[in-house]
Amino acid sequence: MADRVQEILSWYRSDNPGTLTNLYRMLNHGTLAGTGKMVILPVDQGFEHGPARSFAPNPAGYDPRYHFQLALDAGTNAYAAPLGFLEAGAAEYAGQVPLILKANNSDSLYGGADPVPAVTASVQDALRLGATAIGFTIYPASAGRNDMYEELRDLALEAKEAGLVVVVWSYPRGSGISKQGETAVDVIAYAAQIAAQLGAHIIKVKAPTDHIEQDAARKVYEAQGIKVDTMADRVKHVVQSAFDGRRIVIFSGGEAKGTEAVLEENRQTALGGGFGTIMGRNSFQRPHDEAVKLLRDVMEIHRSTWPD
Amino acid sequence: MADRVQEILSWYRSDNPGTLTNLYRMLNHGTLAGTGKMVILPVDQGFEHGPARSFAPNPAGYDPRYHFQLALDAGTNAYAAPLGFLEAGAAEYAGQVPLILKANNSDSLYGGADPVPAVTASVQDALRLGATAIGFTIYPASAGRNDMYEELRDLALEAKEAGLVVVVWSYPRGSGISKQGETAVDVIAYAAQIAAQLGAHIIKVKAPTDHIEQDAARKVYEAQGIKVDTMADRVKHVVQSAFDGRRIVIFSGGEAKGTEAVLEENRQTALGGGFGTIMGRNSFQRPHDEAVKLLRDVMEIHRSTWPD
Amino acid sequence: MADRVQEILSWYRSDNPGTLTNLYRMLNHGTLAGTGKMVILPVDQGFEHGPARSFAPNPAGYDPRYHFQLALDAGTNAYAAPLGFLEAGAAEYAGQVPLILKANNSDSLYGGADPVPAVTASVQDALRLGATAIGFTIYPASAGRNDMYEELRDLALEAKEAGLVVVVWSYPRGSGISKQGETAVDVIAYAAQIAAQLGAHIIKVKAPTDHIEQDAARKVYEAQGIKVDTMADRVKHVVQSAFDGRRIVIFSGGEAKGTEAVLEENRQTALGGGFGTIMGRNSFQRPHDEAVKLLRDVMEIHRSTWPD
Amino acid sequence: MADRVQEILSWYRSDNPGTLTNLYRMLNHGTLAGTGKMVILPVDQGFEHGPARSFAPNPAGYDPRYHFQLALDAGTNAYAAPLGFLEAGAAEYAGQVPLILKANNSDSLYGGADPVPAVTASVQDALRLGATAIGFTIYPASAGRNDMYEELRDLALEAKEAGLVVVVWSYPRGSGISKQGETAVDVIAYAAQIAAQLGAHIIKVKAPTDHIEQDAARKVYEAQGIKVDTMADRVKHVVQSAFDGRRIVIFSGGEAKGTEAVLEENRQTALGGGFGTIMGRNSFQRPHDEAVKLLRDVMEIHRSTWPD
Amino acid sequence: MADRVQEILSWYRSDNPGTLTNLYRMLNHGTLAGTGKMVILPVDQGFEHGPARSFAPNPAGYDPRYHFQLALDAGTNAYAAPLGFLEAGAAEYAGQVPLILKANNSDSLYGGADPVPAVTASVQDALRLGATAIGFTIYPASAGRNDMYEELRDLALEAKEAGLVVVVWSYPRGSGISKQGETAVDVIAYAAQIAAQLGAHIIKVKAPTDHIEQDAARKVYEAQGIKVDTMADRVKHVVQSAFDGRRIVIFSGGEAKGTEAVLEENRQTALGGGFGTIMGRNSFQRPHDEAVKLLRDVMEIHRSTWPD
Repeated sequence: MADRVQEILSWYRSDNPGTLTNLYRMLNHGTLAGTGKMVILPVDQGFEHGPARSFAPNPAGYDPRYHFQLALDAGTNAYAAPLGFLEAGAAEYAGQVPLILKANNSDSLYGGADPVPAVTASVQDALRLGATAIGFTIYPASAGRNDMYEELRDLALEAKEAGLVVVVWSYPRGSGISKQGETAVDVIAYAAQIAAQLGAHIIKVKAPTDHIEQDAARKVYEAQGIKVDTMADRVKHVVQSAFDGRRIVIFSGGEAKGTEAVLEENRQTALGGGFGTIMGRNSFQRPHDEAVKLLRDVMEIHRSTWPD
Repeated sequence: MADRVQEILSWYRSDNPGTLTNLYRMLNHGTLAGTGKMVILPVDQGFEHGPARSFAPNPAGYDPRYHFQLALDAGTNAYAAPLGFLEAGAAEYAGQVPLILKANNSDSLYGGADPVPAVTASVQDALRLGATAIGFTIYPASAGRNDMYEELRDLALEAKEAGLVVVVWSYPRGSGISKQGETAVDVIAYAAQIAAQLGAHIIKVKAPTDHIEQDAARKVYEAQGIKVDTMADRVKHVVQSAFDGRRIVIFSGGEAKGTEAVLEENRQTALGGGFGTIMGRNSFQRPHDEAVKLLRDVMEIHRSTWPD
Repeated sequence: MADRVQEILSWYRSDNPGTLTNLYRMLNHGTLAGTGKMVILPVDQGFEHGPARSFAPNPAGYDPRYHFQLALDAGTNAYAAPLGFLEAGAAEYAGQVPLILKANNSDSLYGGADPVPAVTASVQDALRLGATAIGFTIYPASAGRNDMYEELRDLALEAKEAGLVVVVWSYPRGSGISKQGETAVDVIAYAAQIAAQLGAHIIKVKAPTDHIEQDAARKVYEAQGIKVDTMADRVKHVVQSAFDGRRIVIFSGGEAKGTEAVLEENRQTALGGGFGTIMGRNSFQRPHDEAVKLLRDVMEIHRSTWPD
Repeated sequence: MADRVQEILSWYRSDNPGTLTNLYRMLNHGTLAGTGKMVILPVDQGFEHGPARSFAPNPAGYDPRYHFQLALDAGTNAYAAPLGFLEAGAAEYAGQVPLILKANNSDSLYGGADPVPAVTASVQDALRLGATAIGFTIYPASAGRNDMYEELRDLALEAKEAGLVVVVWSYPRGSGISKQGETAVDVIAYAAQIAAQLGAHIIKVKAPTDHIEQDAARKVYEAQGIKVDTMADRVKHVVQSAFDGRRIVIFSGGEAKGTEAVLEENRQTALGGGFGTIMGRNSFQRPHDEAVKLLRDVMEIHRSTWPD
Repeated sequence: MADRVQEILSWYRSDNPGTLTNLYRMLNHGTLAGTGKMVILPVDQGFEHGPARSFAPNPAGYDPRYHFQLALDAGTNAYAAPLGFLEAGAAEYAGQVPLILKANNSDSLYGGADPVPAVTASVQDALRLGATAIGFTIYPASAGRNDMYEELRDLALEAKEAGLVVVVWSYPRGSGISKQGETAVDVIAYAAQIAAQLGAHIIKVKAPTDHIEQDAARKVYEAQGIKVDTMADRVKHVVQSAFDGRRIVIFSGGEAKGTEAVLEENRQTALGGGFGTIMGRNSFQRPHDEAVKLLRDVMEIHRSTWPD
């Protein structure tokens, strides 16, 4: 299994040993250590949706320490959160779980057609908190996309020079596409490509639907017979779109949903060659033991399911 | 009692000893020293509302030295003011009262639906004036919120590296919400969460009403049975929303009002687990001795009242 | 008399010895040396209104050296001008008269409801030219006010660290107030407060009228019986609004006018406790000897007239 | 032939030996080494048009290593790509092919009349990846052109000081001109001039049509009898417009097209004195061996065809 | 004659010896060496108007070396051009002719009522190319004027510290004035004043007409009887407006015109006390020997014609 980690590291040979070390740490931590698969616990919903909507279903989650412990108990590869949540546990859990400092965030008290998150943390924050990576959201299709790409350029270069890993949440959104287009397979594949071209080490996208958003793309999908019927097909196409599988791409399911739906989505992701998942509300809004079980079940799927 | 201070300091273990030292100084200064409660005197109304509206009711307050002395006489934990007011007394009162340099401010000569304060002071100013903390206002729900969050990110990182405490006034305001929504309990709880996620050590919010502003939030408040009937209920929810009580949250009452109303509001705050209050116009617009008495009465409430 | 200078310096105890030295130089220079009063010659009208409108009435003023000499002949405490005018005489008159480098300026070739001056010089320019102070204009009530406040914050901090004095022209103007409101007594008092809170050592405002602009202010002026009937009353109120008289506030009369009007305005200013005046067009547009006489007459008024 | 390289280097005598060295490397690499002609493989279409539209016709191209190898197999003078694509092969192919880091990029998920690319990489990135040059796109005629010119100014100065070559894609586009005007001969000639004046070492423009866009230009073209009838005429005029041929100007054909059309366009370019071509979709979307053959055929044209 | 140069240098006593050295070099170079007069060859029209409109009338001018040689052959005091044109000859002509690096430029592919040039070069570029000065265009009366003034502030300070001369093209233009107003005598005089106040060593303005644009100015021109009937009168007024003649002011005629018109305009300029001219299209669009003759004739006028 360790060979798989070495294989993955070989895709990142342009990076310095510091970054390779932190990527190794994430790939070799927890339940999926050594498998080349990754399941990450992200908890930025307090900032993104508000505290009650995020934590009232399982009030233990109001306490920032809860999520460090959940990540530890379930054995996720890493725990990702905004500055404040990491500050509130990084010392207590120092070294016990790889941390991803989410460096930009949006809240829901102000809307707008073309979202741009605020950059809420810095590489210096990541270093002082002992994080292994920074996380950054881009919204391709937003009028403000260039601001995000350029903020990411600066943060990513600084992070790489400091030996950190760069994780990009690539979520198309804004006036350039329709609501349905946000999860269209052509758009998600494009979002993965953009994140990879911007220098992401790990890319997180949403699970793609079979909708095709852009006319210019549809012609090619039809002409070339790109298969997008099943989720596994689509995941395969998205992974291929991220440097032919030479970048770690993980998928998220979004809103809280039933256990079986979560498991099935992850089976499809694994069948398509996805590297894993990032699962927030579906884990921390469940009671602790139930969340640990679900996370472990998901991890077992990723450990045992591989593309044909 | 000193154990309570140590307990509070333990929530901030990610901070360096310099910041812990200044937080200790604020928690161990004045009448409430050692209790873990905080009453702060803020005097930025000269900038925010103009000199006559602020100081004519008690003209002694035109003199900047008056407020240092008032803070000293009443034994508040700290005194917060803009650059000019601190410059005009920091040498005379050097070391006698912890100072919070209010680093951004708005005036009332220009309005607008989406307010953004000017950043009027720097961490370097705080250091040269011997302040223990910087204060910063954010307006979640303003179209300009990202500018404020990003200014705060830079100032907070610089302040923390310099061993200062970061106090955030989190006042939702702007075109994202209604006027009534500015003090809605869901919005105030969200405002406390945002400030905590942005890395605030001490958070100041307004006393919440039982209005719920956002539909997405209302569903959760109802589904989870979150109690918001009394002020104490609401304060408890807001404190929980700030990292389950592991961040210092203090409440303000706003406009000048009658003595009994002030005292009752503070009783409720204390019953709900609030850490104290920040009281400007209700103190410095009263005659000196009356103000000292009111501040001391409020402090006595916070000293003696604890949640069930 | 020197005691008065020491008294004034005592208000600025937060400043470093460099700044106190330059403030001392300005207070101890020229005809009013040692009195604590200040009359300053400002010549930025070439930039602000154009050369012919400024200098054609007395063409000697086209030559930048003329104004250094006028300041010297009349014994004003300082001479204030934009970068180019100072560059064109600073070497010739090195050390002979305290210089204030006016660091931002507007011209009249482009208008607009919400003016923002260009920042046309730097602290480094002030230092290389041997200036004792920088001057900076803010327009409270302009939509661009925050830009000015933040530019001033940076320049003021840098100036103070370099031992320079900060002089702020606080001129409310813009879409936040009416034309009449620009000299309303409540607005002028507020403008003085803002400049003081932003860290100005010396504040220049316009002579206030008895108009009250803001409804919220009017209620307080009436309730508290603030006297604004005579110019002396209003000056007294404005001086009180600048930290209860603990900041140097000087007044300007604006457009060129008759000699007696100038003298009477200065008498009222002195009676109200104003620290002096800044007089441009009313001096340099007159023939040299007439200008010297007027400046000396004004200085004599300030020397000999004090509040009851 | 090496004399031709020395002749070309002599046009860049203002550059430091580092830049001359990297320019020499590009001119002396591959099939056209020593001829003074250049054929470059650019692969930024994954970012610009999306992955499926770019790579589905020849899926081997999803893998970033494919393009390094294609450039090597065909013997192009250099390979140009965005940050991510270079990161994903720069170590494996270190030193084997000169790399041009494309430092700004646009995607197609958001449109707009006046495009501005995001700056997606830095000179520091180019250095750490061993690139010989940075590439940068400007859109003259866009309302955002000044932003691009100023970004280029900073990057170009930094690149030259670091001994890198600066390659500019000059593509007029935006609300200043018509769609037809984007390839008008007057506009293309102007675009080449702008790139040269901004300090480009190598300039890439589109093949010009015989349309003349600007009235003020048309008068001159007619009065001076500038020949624009054949592509060779127009290429000659464009090369003359780039410092009388003393800057390397290469031409691109744009969309994928038939083999003969590609070859004929290159014959015309060579006849007009163009230095070569940059050919992306027409090469990497063909099967590998077919692409190598086409690139070599094109190179043979440039090697053997010279202006009369 | 050398006394005249010393006299001129004496106006710039605030500058460091480096800047005085470069100013001396420009005043003591070429045909007018030692006279205190200046004729400069500017060639930025390739950028500003496009290559064909600029160079097709005399195609030798496509080659950047042509203009260095023309400046040398005619003996102009300096040669001014954008970055690319200087890079393409600065090594070949190193030290042979003083160079002015034109640091901002506009092209004609995009219009707009309120022009703002792009800053296309830096002081570091000027230093590495051996230039004696930077050139910078401001457009007073443009909505974007403040951006230009502030860019100039930074560049000018940096240039002066590096011992360079600052040459300002002051061309009023934009929505603040009418088309006719761009050359109105009051506006040109104001433009000269602004450039001088911003710290220019050498100021270039257009030849003024007898139109008066601004009402507030007209009153003064009439009341003070400022003579504006002849070009000599107007030039005299403009020179007076630039610090009473203590700044070098040169005039340009704009579009290409007949030889006699050029000579007469220069006679008037010299009679009015203008320091010389800057002549681009009227020189480099003529055949080489004709251009040299015209430049020498113009220089002879400036050498021999002085105000009464």
